[in-house]
Amino acid sequence: MIQVGIIGANGYTGGELLKLLNCHSQAEVVVATSRKLAGTPIYKVHPHLRDLDLKFEKIEPGDIEADLVFTATPHGASMNIVPQIIENDIKVIDLSGDYRFDDLEVYEKWYGLKQSNPLESVYGLPEMYRAEIKDADLVANPGCFPTGAILACLPLVAENLVDKVIIDAKTGVSGAGIKPSDVTHYPNCSDNVIPYLVTSHRHGPEIQEKLAKFGDVGVSFTPHLVPVIRGILSTVHTFPTQDVTSSYIKELYDDFYEGEPFVRVLDVGEIPRLSSVRGSNHCHIGSFDTDENGRLVVASSIDNLVKGASGQAVHNMNIMFGFKETESLDMVGLHP
Amino acid sequence: MIQVGIIGANGYTGGELLKLLNCHSQAEVVVATSRKLAGTPIYKVHPHLRDLDLKFEKIEPGDIEADLVFTATPHGASMNIVPQIIENDIKVIDLSGDYRFDDLEVYEKWYGLKQSNPLESVYGLPEMYRAEIKDADLVANPGCFPTGAILACLPLVAENLVDKVIIDAKTGVSGAGIKPSDVTHYPNCSDNVIPYLVTSHRHGPEIQEKLAKFGDVGVSFTPHLVPVIRGILSTVHTFPTQDVTSSYIKELYDDFYEGEPFVRVLDVGEIPRLSSVRGSNHCHIGSFDTDENGRLVVASSIDNLVKGASGQAVHNMNIMFGFKETESLDMVGLHP
Amino acid sequence: MIQVGIIGANGYTGGELLKLLNCHSQAEVVVATSRKLAGTPIYKVHPHLRDLDLKFEKIEPGDIEADLVFTATPHGASMNIVPQIIENDIKVIDLSGDYRFDDLEVYEKWYGLKQSNPLESVYGLPEMYRAEIKDADLVANPGCFPTGAILACLPLVAENLVDKVIIDAKTGVSGAGIKPSDVTHYPNCSDNVIPYLVTSHRHGPEIQEKLAKFGDVGVSFTPHLVPVIRGILSTVHTFPTQDVTSSYIKELYDDFYEGEPFVRVLDVGEIPRLSSVRGSNHCHIGSFDTDENGRLVVASSIDNLVKGASGQAVHNMNIMFGFKETESLDMVGLHP
Amino acid sequence: MIQVGIIGANGYTGGELLKLLNCHSQAEVVVATSRKLAGTPIYKVHPHLRDLDLKFEKIEPGDIEADLVFTATPHGASMNIVPQIIENDIKVIDLSGDYRFDDLEVYEKWYGLKQSNPLESVYGLPEMYRAEIKDADLVANPGCFPTGAILACLPLVAENLVDKVIIDAKTGVSGAGIKPSDVTHYPNCSDNVIPYLVTSHRHGPEIQEKLAKFGDVGVSFTPHLVPVIRGILSTVHTFPTQDVTSSYIKELYDDFYEGEPFVRVLDVGEIPRLSSVRGSNHCHIGSFDTDENGRLVVASSIDNLVKGASGQAVHNMNIMFGFKETESLDMVGLHP
Repeated sequence: MIQVGIIGANGYTGGELLKLLNCHSQAEVVVATSRKLAGTPIYKVHPHLRDLDLKFEKIEPGDIEADLVFTATPHGASMNIVPQIIENDIKVIDLSGDYRFDDLEVYEKWYGLKQSNPLESVYGLPEMYRAEIKDADLVANPGCFPTGAILACLPLVAENLVDKVIIDAKTGVSGAGIKPSDVTHYPNCSDNVIPYLVTSHRHGPEIQEKLAKFGDVGVSFTPHLVPVIRGILSTVHTFPTQDVTSSYIKELYDDFYEGEPFVRVLDVGEIPRLSSVRGSNHCHIGSFDTDENGRLVVASSIDNLVKGASGQAVHNMNIMFGFKETESLDMVGLHP
Repeated sequence: MIQVGIIGANGYTGGELLKLLNCHSQAEVVVATSRKLAGTPIYKVHPHLRDLDLKFEKIEPGDIEADLVFTATPHGASMNIVPQIIENDIKVIDLSGDYRFDDLEVYEKWYGLKQSNPLESVYGLPEMYRAEIKDADLVANPGCFPTGAILACLPLVAENLVDKVIIDAKTGVSGAGIKPSDVTHYPNCSDNVIPYLVTSHRHGPEIQEKLAKFGDVGVSFTPHLVPVIRGILSTVHTFPTQDVTSSYIKELYDDFYEGEPFVRVLDVGEIPRLSSVRGSNHCHIGSFDTDENGRLVVASSIDNLVKGASGQAVHNMNIMFGFKETESLDMVGLHP
Repeated sequence: MIQVGIIGANGYTGGELLKLLNCHSQAEVVVATSRKLAGTPIYKVHPHLRDLDLKFEKIEPGDIEADLVFTATPHGASMNIVPQIIENDIKVIDLSGDYRFDDLEVYEKWYGLKQSNPLESVYGLPEMYRAEIKDADLVANPGCFPTGAILACLPLVAENLVDKVIIDAKTGVSGAGIKPSDVTHYPNCSDNVIPYLVTSHRHGPEIQEKLAKFGDVGVSFTPHLVPVIRGILSTVHTFPTQDVTSSYIKELYDDFYEGEPFVRVLDVGEIPRLSSVRGSNHCHIGSFDTDENGRLVVASSIDNLVKGASGQAVHNMNIMFGFKETESLDMVGLHP
Repeated sequence: MIQVGIIGANGYTGGELLKLLNCHSQAEVVVATSRKLAGTPIYKVHPHLRDLDLKFEKIEPGDIEADLVFTATPHGASMNIVPQIIENDIKVIDLSGDYRFDDLEVYEKWYGLKQSNPLESVYGLPEMYRAEIKDADLVANPGCFPTGAILACLPLVAENLVDKVIIDAKTGVSGAGIKPSDVTHYPNCSDNVIPYLVTSHRHGPEIQEKLAKFGDVGVSFTPHLVPVIRGILSTVHTFPTQDVTSSYIKELYDDFYEGEPFVRVLDVGEIPRLSSVRGSNHCHIGSFDTDENGRLVVASSIDNLVKGASGQAVHNMNIMFGFKETESLDMVGLHP
């Protein structure tokens, strides 16, 4: 049984970590912090965790005693917290963008922040870097969009079948976090579809950097907000550089993801549904359709708070500590 | 490990049973029937169960070999199926209305059906009839509305505090089942609230009959369809026959439901949320507010497909076979 | 052609006023104020009014020159603004709660505010006070809940058929206004039904005071937030003090509302739909069902921003200035 | 005042035609047909038209007397009806796909139907063919997706700036019509985003054929169903064949659509909203963003039942009969 801390437990990803870890047979949450809510029972913020007998605490990062800490802190905040924890020989899984980029210039350009405490880290997408994660002290948990988009594109890129991909992504509103804003105001986003940061979302360069390690590809990314609570549907449009058939592509994906515990390659023409993965750590990948202009479409679905955030973080923990990879992560989607 | 059959596994309650039983350590689904879909892999209908290696079968009820059969069949169909199974010394949990009523005249009036094969049965609300369920061969699983409404009213009725209750219930659309209709057509029920069968829903007399065993009360029931997938919020308005305070009522409920594994009595003024119980087998009960006219309000929330149907059925199974009551039912709500 | 001002034009009711008045053949908006947004084109806040060539202005209430001013200002703010305008012999329709109550003690108790500038006003529900509105200098536009609830109850109360009414109301989220909050955060209110201020919403006493002028009745009111943008569905449960039939009640309503341009009495058993009145100034009233316990149900639907606010305000203007009552208000619902 | 008939008035486009024509000062609906519902008052199906004193009729197309007939009939049905009407010297606006294609082979391939009664027709997109519509006897009203997609692409194609366009479209569920199906079942499409007919939707070849008249371009089209009642958001991704800036593109669109009564070109970076055009006949076009890979994004929004169907049909009528183009079509969007 390892002891685990969560810094920034009052947000959606914090709540999801608490929920998943609460069922974990080999990990125990010993501290869950929130500066503003110190002393408040956790169920006041996360009402589904009504039986959880735990309160938010205020504690200095350097004072935490644990085997592992999840930092569910904002971009820019993590870089000031993580080094203090690492210094105490505690492993860290960081859910912010601070340690995701190899190229700090890219980070600094897109986040408008100076990375003042760079550290060695591993990009925590198990399907890409399982071996490295196993030995890592600091794992940078991927962004929600990059998770769904990379998994949909990776086999094509690794096989050098594409030189450009267009990712038209649709995300549920929980991706914007627990804090209300004009964008997340019900009358604004209900009954609506809103493209935003059309060519300037910082998950674009994250996808670009990670895919480029596996092949020469240009990534064009546009997110849309849809009236959905959880889930990201990524539609990838691409013109393969050689003739391909749907069944060839389907086989390519089958081979690529063989044995992966959380990726399901659907049949040709079968469409990934958000409800198939809602609340689960699975990624469904399907479509594989082609058209007369030589375009190929691949679509993927994930739950942004699970596979796109906290579930993937727990998966990384399982790998880092040698637990069964699916421990506490084997729930299926809430359908309907 | 017991062997379990599901008749009518192609609907929403069938899918939910398959999902819950798939995680059960002491029960195994050996047959899941659907006349129309015999031979079809189950995941084609229930896409979240993509890893379930099982197909729908067509099999005569009398030919099923199992320790327990769930009949997720329509009203009127169950009464022709259940006796054949019971005859083979197999226990049955029936999810239809056919065996819920003690007074067959009430059943026949409201369902417009003649109960041609009456059998002894126990009403499967564990909070009411745990002991009887333990020894039952046939359990009639409660309706979705009655589950939420009875749990919200029962302590008041049992304490003889009320002589009339008005239950204004709001249900998610999955309560209408998997079959499309005008009512469930997205453009009709989205962005809408629809009272229906305003004084003539057959769950009204079910609530009436069951509560009347515990106290002399008249039940007035009106359901509304709301743009929600899962969940029932029951708002109970009543004028207690004696002066009561919120804290008195809250204590009454605390005492009444003490030790119940799936009922949570909230703090005074705390509001039950659908998201706190979405996908879970819990029932949250709260509000307990009173107004100047002597009205008391109690509200409850459940997931209609879980506590209101399949989760409660599995709970009944756990009781009937002496399993831990929370086995495969300890998931919390999907919030947000 | 009269000249009209709108104070507080940046909210939802302000936007709706601008939209309705823009089509009015005898009224012209000459000034639309917003302290914070002075200088900003109106379409930046109200994107549907893209062709409106008008900017928000900052101007002292006392400096406005117009025939009529709508004050779409918060409770507590109106009482400081309205007297300055009235003093200049300009008529006012106030959309806040400040001038709705005859009994200032009730106002002060429920709003927690001292009415420092009381003025003579008429309650602007045309179906109640048409004659008085015609001659008024200050009209207090009713609250959204009171509009739908009073219209559903009034004939029963006026006929002395009831001594208690329970109003279980369901409102769309736009009723909370344009400003984001936890309550209106999409992941919180989507796929949910939330009772709130269960016995303490200040629209309760407003309904109580107004109905009590027409008959001796006790009002119990509970609002619910539903995942709907616009619309209020009010379900009235009551036990008439004498035997009634559905058709008798339907005729009572037919007679009571005969000739009313915006009230439609539906057939017995016909259910008011939000989509029938979405975007329109109509109120649909229907159901009229009775049950075995002597309960009668009447349901009404309105668009909270139109009949429940700005449409009713324009209706009041039409009456005050002798315009055709339906001028700029004859649009039907946006169904589906 | 012209006399107008509507064949197939019981669907969503029929209801929308009735609503729009009801406010038209120069057109009067004299007959609205529905074979199945003959004799039923129209408000039973279209509850928002409660004041419309008209019943569905059953009448042979050849027996209709009118100046103009709208055929809101299914693909394959129109071709059997339209010739009988045209023969009687009555003008027709057909809302099906039967007369949209110049190349009958394309029609027959994608619709799986033999066009047995070809007639000369004009494609009823006023922004493309205003002059031809003016003189037409038969206008083929465009599909909903083609309307939004073509308007978003046309200036680029006409200026020869692109050789390929990818259109990723998101449609509200009313686009599927009034008839319930698995796809439109609330629990299936709520909280979901569903790509469908990923490379095989028949609106793809319609867009292709029409754009190809204005420039050499390959069209790749993928629709998605989103949990929205009305509206289509079309996101066009393209790699212009020469360097362009956002402001250059914005100006191009400004010039192209100058004077168009229903097209609004937004500012650079301004995003079209469904709510800005909900219930209106406007098309908003915006974004114009470019990325580092040379991709340009243009997005458009329409209401699929108005500009994408019945509003456009009335616009065509106005042009054909020399009425003011905006007659009965000048409503703005229902925002929020």
